[in-house]
Amino acid sequence: MRDHLTFQLGDFTTQHGATLRGAHLAYTTYGELNADKSNAIVYPTWYSGRHWDNEWLIGPGMALDPEHYFIIVPNMLGNGLSTSPSNTPPPYDRARFPHITVYDQVAAQHRLVTEQFGIERIALVTGWSMGAGQTYQWAVSHPEMVERIAPFCGSPRTSLHNKVFLEGVKAALTADGTFNGGWYGETWPTTGLRALARVYAGWGFSQAFYWEKEYEKLGYTSLEDFLVGFWEGFFLDGRDPNNLLTMLWTWQNGDIGLTPGFNGDTEAALGSIRATTLDMPAEKDLYFPPEDEAWAVSLIPGAELRVIPGIWGHFAGHGSNPTDTEFIDTGLKQLLAKPGGLA
Amino acid sequence: MRDHLTFQLGDFTTQHGATLRGAHLAYTTYGELNADKSNAIVYPTWYSGRHWDNEWLIGPGMALDPEHYFIIVPNMLGNGLSTSPSNTPPPYDRARFPHITVYDQVAAQHRLVTEQFGIERIALVTGWSMGAGQTYQWAVSHPEMVERIAPFCGSPRTSLHNKVFLEGVKAALTADGTFNGGWYGETWPTTGLRALARVYAGWGFSQAFYWEKEYEKLGYTSLEDFLVGFWEGFFLDGRDPNNLLTMLWTWQNGDIGLTPGFNGDTEAALGSIRATTLDMPAEKDLYFPPEDEAWAVSLIPGAELRVIPGIWGHFAGHGSNPTDTEFIDTGLKQLLAKPGGLA
Repeated sequence: MRDHLTFQLGDFTTQHGATLRGAHLAYTTYGELNADKSNAIVYPTWYSGRHWDNEWLIGPGMALDPEHYFIIVPNMLGNGLSTSPSNTPPPYDRARFPHITVYDQVAAQHRLVTEQFGIERIALVTGWSMGAGQTYQWAVSHPEMVERIAPFCGSPRTSLHNKVFLEGVKAALTADGTFNGGWYGETWPTTGLRALARVYAGWGFSQAFYWEKEYEKLGYTSLEDFLVGFWEGFFLDGRDPNNLLTMLWTWQNGDIGLTPGFNGDTEAALGSIRATTLDMPAEKDLYFPPEDEAWAVSLIPGAELRVIPGIWGHFAGHGSNPTDTEFIDTGLKQLLAKPGGLA
Repeated sequence: MRDHLTFQLGDFTTQHGATLRGAHLAYTTYGELNADKSNAIVYPTWYSGRHWDNEWLIGPGMALDPEHYFIIVPNMLGNGLSTSPSNTPPPYDRARFPHITVYDQVAAQHRLVTEQFGIERIALVTGWSMGAGQTYQWAVSHPEMVERIAPFCGSPRTSLHNKVFLEGVKAALTADGTFNGGWYGETWPTTGLRALARVYAGWGFSQAFYWEKEYEKLGYTSLEDFLVGFWEGFFLDGRDPNNLLTMLWTWQNGDIGLTPGFNGDTEAALGSIRATTLDMPAEKDLYFPPEDEAWAVSLIPGAELRVIPGIWGHFAGHGSNPTDTEFIDTGLKQLLAKPGGLA
């Protein structure tokens, strides 16, 4: 696990009006920023992901090659490394942590990119899942900066069904009395976390993934072994419940139409995107279905929709299936070979 | 709500070896059995459904017309009306209620049909969801009796993904400490029931159903109103948690291959079906996807697959959407006009 650097945000005021005093972004970088600062890529994290969880898509010979690009991976506010319920002192700590919008996430990242590095143009923003949501937000918040975007397995606006899926995730966690409205003590609500994991398990991969027992390729020896070993293990791995709920709120309320100036008009926000866009949803993604992205792409000038084929569902973008990784990497290479939308 | 009749099963021994002493089936009938007892239809219930929940598919001018057919609706063991955790005296009460297989359900129903009514041939068995599972089981358990089957939105074997969906449902309910391993008191684990309802909400209808806000057609005024008014209301409406878990176990373990004589060979069990078969999965059913049923139908001699089109997902078979109801009713009419498999 690569160590992270810290960018001090100072007093960070959220879109909803709270001020996190002494806030920070944890981030890391790969490669070197070139002299004219034209080779920057921003690659935000996903729901509960940390910067090291993005490394599968970075490497020599890949689209995100540190020999050629300066790749910045900022950790989301709420993920436990950047300012989060778990590391904020009172009074904004724990269950009192304020709501963070996707707009806020990108506002913080924009400060890192401009103040820390003096970058004025970004060659590419890309990301998986909530990272895709932040990718769309970058293109809308800073159309003058972002040359290309490649969201994969995500959306510019969280759909109603996606919100319902997340309601189930949230309800399972908070049904555990130990959660205590977010004021749990040193004993975490592990029953609730395990329940959340089991709810999530049905959504993360497709029906066909389970039918074909693809989890065996990941080293799991039975369905129950996958549920315990992968899913419960995933959410018991230091993932603070309040952090999970903070990020969940961000996800549920994701909508580029809520960017100041758009008055909730998602279609207008999509129409404002100037970046060259390659959108890659996964064929059997159960909460970011490709139909939704066909709608989004139809509203972004010149955008391309390229569906990741196969049965891994949402986790096509998780880096665990070599076929899907190659598909995404190929898409990114082809996008980077195209002129940026600001050219 | 129509009253029910009671059939005494006496000592009912389950497939797993428990004996429920003084067990009973609650059931109701529509229409009259004709002189040669050739007009019987069996229409089992679904997960938490009661006999009155099946009435939407029964009526004058419909396929299931009481003027022509004698329609028997047996309540599933575990549904709260037939023998269930909630109405069984100690020692097999509540959390100690034994596991009931789909095979057991049909064994009990077979006794009702033969002992109470002296019926030797059944013109049709049909049912939604778990009712579809019982429909398949009838054709495998009693090939000499069943002339036609029309399972809709169900399967002959619960798929691995479907089991995972149900794990999430179960985990949400049991995360509530009030559940207390099934030994809750007069205070029910309503937080867990509401959590279960929210988990279920994402699965019952399709992504597109929510995108199109089809719930407004059911009289719900917002997404949250649908989650509370329909879903939480559904599971808080007298649905005993232990009953829900008993039926959930039956569902998770559904497999016609577990019928005695088939040694777990689901394909052989499908191949043994002699009834004329019309299988109607729903296009966007998230836990009984049509691909799975294409597989099942390919193994049943002469069976027809007819996919219910549209965006209501699993609830296409719930009787709430007139278009889907008409599609199913038309299918049943056409099936009843065909020769039975035993002709």
